[in-house]
Amino acid sequence: MTMDGQWYTEEWAGQGSAISLKITRKLHDEQSPYQRIEIYDTENFGRLMTLDGLVMVTDRDNFIYHEMMSHPALFTHADPKSVLIIGGGDCGTLHEVLKHPVTEVIQVELDERVTRVAEQFFPALTASNHDARARLRFADGIAWVTEAAAGSLDVIIVDGTDPIGPAAGLFSEAFYKSCWRALRPGGILAGQSESPLFHADLICAMHGALRAAGFADVRTLPFAQCTYPSGWWSTTLAAKGTTLDRIREQATNARPFNTRYYNLAIHQSAFALPQFLRERLDGQEGAS
Amino acid sequence: MTMDGQWYTEEWAGQGSAISLKITRKLHDEQSPYQRIEIYDTENFGRLMTLDGLVMVTDRDNFIYHEMMSHPALFTHADPKSVLIIGGGDCGTLHEVLKHPVTEVIQVELDERVTRVAEQFFPALTASNHDARARLRFADGIAWVTEAAAGSLDVIIVDGTDPIGPAAGLFSEAFYKSCWRALRPGGILAGQSESPLFHADLICAMHGALRAAGFADVRTLPFAQCTYPSGWWSTTLAAKGTTLDRIREQATNARPFNTRYYNLAIHQSAFALPQFLRERLDGQEGAS
Repeated sequence: MTMDGQWYTEEWAGQGSAISLKITRKLHDEQSPYQRIEIYDTENFGRLMTLDGLVMVTDRDNFIYHEMMSHPALFTHADPKSVLIIGGGDCGTLHEVLKHPVTEVIQVELDERVTRVAEQFFPALTASNHDARARLRFADGIAWVTEAAAGSLDVIIVDGTDPIGPAAGLFSEAFYKSCWRALRPGGILAGQSESPLFHADLICAMHGALRAAGFADVRTLPFAQCTYPSGWWSTTLAAKGTTLDRIREQATNARPFNTRYYNLAIHQSAFALPQFLRERLDGQEGAS
Repeated sequence: MTMDGQWYTEEWAGQGSAISLKITRKLHDEQSPYQRIEIYDTENFGRLMTLDGLVMVTDRDNFIYHEMMSHPALFTHADPKSVLIIGGGDCGTLHEVLKHPVTEVIQVELDERVTRVAEQFFPALTASNHDARARLRFADGIAWVTEAAAGSLDVIIVDGTDPIGPAAGLFSEAFYKSCWRALRPGGILAGQSESPLFHADLICAMHGALRAAGFADVRTLPFAQCTYPSGWWSTTLAAKGTTLDRIREQATNARPFNTRYYNLAIHQSAFALPQFLRERLDGQEGAS
C-alpha cells in the first residue's frame, strides 16, 4: 500500500484485515506496568488512544460504544443506585453512567495510567471523574467482584479489553458467577462482547457462560463501531431475576441529558439479531 | 505501517481512515470502458472485487448489503411484480430479489464487464442471472428511468456506487422525479445511501430530494457493513402513495428462502435512527 502521510494501523488479528487512521502527531507514548499506552492526534478522528497497538478510543466514534455500554443497562434496571464498572479506564462509560441519578459508581480499572493519560488527553470523557459519586479504584476487577458483598450492586458493567491476556477471565463462567452473587435481585450485567461478524463463537460462549452462572435472560445488542474490528461491535446484557424487556420507556424518553446515539428506539431495536446469530443462539439455547 | 504479506487498501476519501484486506493473489485486472475492475483472493474475506480501487463486494460480508438492499423493499410493497435494479452489476441484489415471486426484474448496469467478471468470479451472487424473469440490460440507468413508461414498476432499487462520477445523478431530485413517475401507486424505491457516520450530509440531502420529488414517507435503514467506509452503511426507502410501516409480516416470517442477516425483527428495528441522525432529519423535515 502507498498512502501519503503517517498512519496508525491496527491489524485485526486472525481476520486478514486492518483499519488505519491518519495521524498528524504522536502526543504520548509510555509503557505502563501493564501495557503500552499511546496517544495520537488524527486527521479526522480527533484524539486516538491505543493500548498495545489496539484502538481503544477515538474522539469521533467513542460515543456509540460508551452510550451502548451504559444506557441500555441503566434504563432497564428499575432503580439503579449502585454501579460497578470493571475496566473502563478511559472513563467514557463512567461519564455516561453518572448522567443517571445513581448514588455510587465504583470503577475498578487495572491500570491507573490509562485513566491518568485519559484525564490528560480526553477531557470530555473524564469530565465526571471528580463527581462525588465516583470512586476510582485501581485493582484487579475479577478479585474485586469475588470479594464484593453479596447482593450489594444493581448494575455491573464489564468494559474490558479483548478476551486475551488479563481480560480473558472477564468472559468466564466463574467470573459471571461472582457477578451474579454480587448483584441484588433485579440486577443487570452489561459486558462488551466483541464483533458479531468476527467473534460469533465468543458471543455464543458468553451466552452459555452467563446462563450457566444463573442469568436467565441474556441478550446481545449489536451496534456500529467504526474503529473496532469489523466496524461492528456489541454489548451483552444479562438479568438476575428480571427480564431485559422491561425498559423504563418514560424515563428513557424524558432523560434530562443529551445522547448522540442512544434513544428508546435504538434501545428496543438493538435486541434484533442478524439471522445467522439468532440461529446459532436459538440452537444453543434450545438445546441447553 | 509494517504488515506482513500483501494487502489491498482502500483509503476512505476525506476521512483520514482506510481498510485493508490481506490478499493471497490477484485473479483479474482489467480496464473496462468505465473503470478498472480487479479481483483478488483474500485470506479471510473470500473473493474481493474492487472498482477503481474501491471495495465493491467480498464473499464474506456482502450478504448484509444485498439482503438490506432487497428484502425491506420487497416485503414492504403489497405485491411486487415488476422490479428495476439500477447498477447492481455484481448481481447480488438481483439474486436476492429473484427469491421473491416477482414476474420481471430488469437490471440496468452501465458496465457490462462488471457483470461478466462477477459471473466468472462470484458464482453465488450470479447464480440467478439466467432466471427467466431476469433481464440484464447494459445501459445508463438514469436515461432508462426517464424513458420508462409511467406507472410501470413496483420497486426500483438503486444499487449504484458512491455519488461521484457517473453515479452522482442517482442522488438527484430530477432522477427521483423520474423514479416517482415510473412507479405505480404503492411503489417503493430503495437506494444505497452511504455511511451514517461519514455521510450524514448526503443522507439528509437525499431525504430532501426524495421528498421534493413526491415521496411522502422516506426512511433510512442503517446496517453494519465491514468493508464499506466506516463499517456502517445504509439503504434509504421511499414510498409512493403508501407508508413504509406496512411490512408484510406474515410473508416475512414465512419466507421460503434462507437469509443470513435479514429477518422481521431486523427489518422493523432498522428504522431506529441514531439520535444524531434523527435530530438532523427531524429538524430538516419539520422545517420543510
